[in-house]
Amino acid sequence: MKKRADTRCTLLTLKQCARYLKKHDNYIILTHASPDGDTLGSAYALYYGLNEIGKRASVLCADIIPKKYDFFVRATDHIKREGATVVAVDVADKALLGELKEEFGDIVNLNIDHHISNSQFAENLYLDATAAATTEIIFELLSLMKVNINDITAKALYTGLVTDTGCFKYATVNAKTHIIAAMLYEYNINASEINRLMFDTKSKKLLELEKQVLETAEYHFDDKCIILTVTDKMQESTGCSGTELEGIAVISRSVEGVKAGVTIKQTDENKFKVSVRTYDPLDASAICKKLGGGGHKGAAGASVSGSLAEVKEMILKAVKEAMEE
Amino acid sequence: MKKRADTRCTLLTLKQCARYLKKHDNYIILTHASPDGDTLGSAYALYYGLNEIGKRASVLCADIIPKKYDFFVRATDHIKREGATVVAVDVADKALLGELKEEFGDIVNLNIDHHISNSQFAENLYLDATAAATTEIIFELLSLMKVNINDITAKALYTGLVTDTGCFKYATVNAKTHIIAAMLYEYNINASEINRLMFDTKSKKLLELEKQVLETAEYHFDDKCIILTVTDKMQESTGCSGTELEGIAVISRSVEGVKAGVTIKQTDENKFKVSVRTYDPLDASAICKKLGGGGHKGAAGASVSGSLAEVKEMILKAVKEAMEE
Repeated sequence: MKKRADTRCTLLTLKQCARYLKKHDNYIILTHASPDGDTLGSAYALYYGLNEIGKRASVLCADIIPKKYDFFVRATDHIKREGATVVAVDVADKALLGELKEEFGDIVNLNIDHHISNSQFAENLYLDATAAATTEIIFELLSLMKVNINDITAKALYTGLVTDTGCFKYATVNAKTHIIAAMLYEYNINASEINRLMFDTKSKKLLELEKQVLETAEYHFDDKCIILTVTDKMQESTGCSGTELEGIAVISRSVEGVKAGVTIKQTDENKFKVSVRTYDPLDASAICKKLGGGGHKGAAGASVSGSLAEVKEMILKAVKEAMEE
Repeated sequence: MKKRADTRCTLLTLKQCARYLKKHDNYIILTHASPDGDTLGSAYALYYGLNEIGKRASVLCADIIPKKYDFFVRATDHIKREGATVVAVDVADKALLGELKEEFGDIVNLNIDHHISNSQFAENLYLDATAAATTEIIFELLSLMKVNINDITAKALYTGLVTDTGCFKYATVNAKTHIIAAMLYEYNINASEINRLMFDTKSKKLLELEKQVLETAEYHFDDKCIILTVTDKMQESTGCSGTELEGIAVISRSVEGVKAGVTIKQTDENKFKVSVRTYDPLDASAICKKLGGGGHKGAAGASVSGSLAEVKEMILKAVKEAMEE
């Protein structure tokens, strides 16, 4: 493992990527921080695949791996940093390596990713932005390398597919995603149990938080706008925070007839993180721009200071303007 | 359309089923009552397919078709009862025809279904119990008949696939389900929009009911049992009832660590419908048997009389016994 002399990034084809992996050894496979099913599924499927062809490899993640992935996560080899080949999977930028950035950010030899926004920070990059999940790419890679796929490898691959697509729901899904899923059914993956773990299990504390958040529901503009609020106090009393709160914004956009779903999350006494989800013709990024933030047309955010009442007033003003435009 | 002389049911192969449909005309296509995405998707896909080969057809349903299916539901031809060929899709028993049973229950010429429990009430039956949805069968049928599939037909077929499998989540899904999904992506189906309509849209009143129900959450036996209650008053105040309440039992089984999820629905002042959802090793049907009901191992129900407090006591006793067995 050596510091790179230059910072140019070479774009590889899938074939070149396969050849690279066959040629090297002693892999350190990095996932992104706050790991999800796709980065973990990609890392472990690659790990099992490399093991199958006699390579040594280790999986590293900056954060603790949630217990729900236990069914495919195993202790991996210990690879010394010196002389290792560093591979990142599903990592769009080195900042996403979290606490591993310092040590590995500038020495990633190969990055395998599906994010169109990839910042090309690695020495070599295989990028397929049409893939709905990075595990789609890993599946194609292992197939091309003619590596034996075990049940546990197939489980890891399937987990990436479903977690990055909301179980085949999102607009990123295409025919290939379903064909790969069909091929993974040839293994003993127990897909329905994986889906139960990934989608239909929530903690008691999250259920309690959801109850408290639903109590804050406010409807405006003929029910075309809903505002949900998550206060500091709710986060403290339930013990829910960080990524556990992700599902709340989903609730705001699921209400029939709502064109602007707003979630206000308190981050400090007079500081709030505002998430806006919109449907056509409303533009979430235009609304958040008025609040000093930004994002995409359907989903955007902003950090707003003030009392909760003041913040709500600013949001309603921005939504109203957007509705009138 | 003639009354059948005998009540024997002839089991057809897919090829015979295709030949039957090519041979006859003036179809009345029946869905089951309380129509879901699979029975409607099957009926309309078959209707569009038959239209493509110059046949006249009509779709009939005992109940009002929910508005969320508007994207593939259209006004169909008017077919006179006299001389019609009656086809039922996704109908396991004539009782499921609802108010159409009286008129059509004994004169169904062809039934196309995937329920292993099919009571063979029709003159001819094509049954594929390995299909995750009846629209899987309709897709194979139209392919075999070399019938042109339009975008709207593909939308109807895809809707059946996703609604009967919880968007590819359930244990009934297999490789073929995904291969058919992949083939439907060749059409302009806008799958993510269909999934949003089917899975991520709930009414304001349902959100309000969920809030009220979460407030009733009671945990017992080291959080291994949760009880949720839906009172008469909640149903009245929110205007939610009937099939709209189906999602509540799902909440009860989604809480991490819960082995027995119980939902109590008030049906009269001192009458309650109890739904029990369990995970291994608990047996929901054994619990409900103790309450005078029955069902499957993972999902069962019972009707129990008494005050709410008394009913809860009976349930807890039954759950406790089951846990100790």
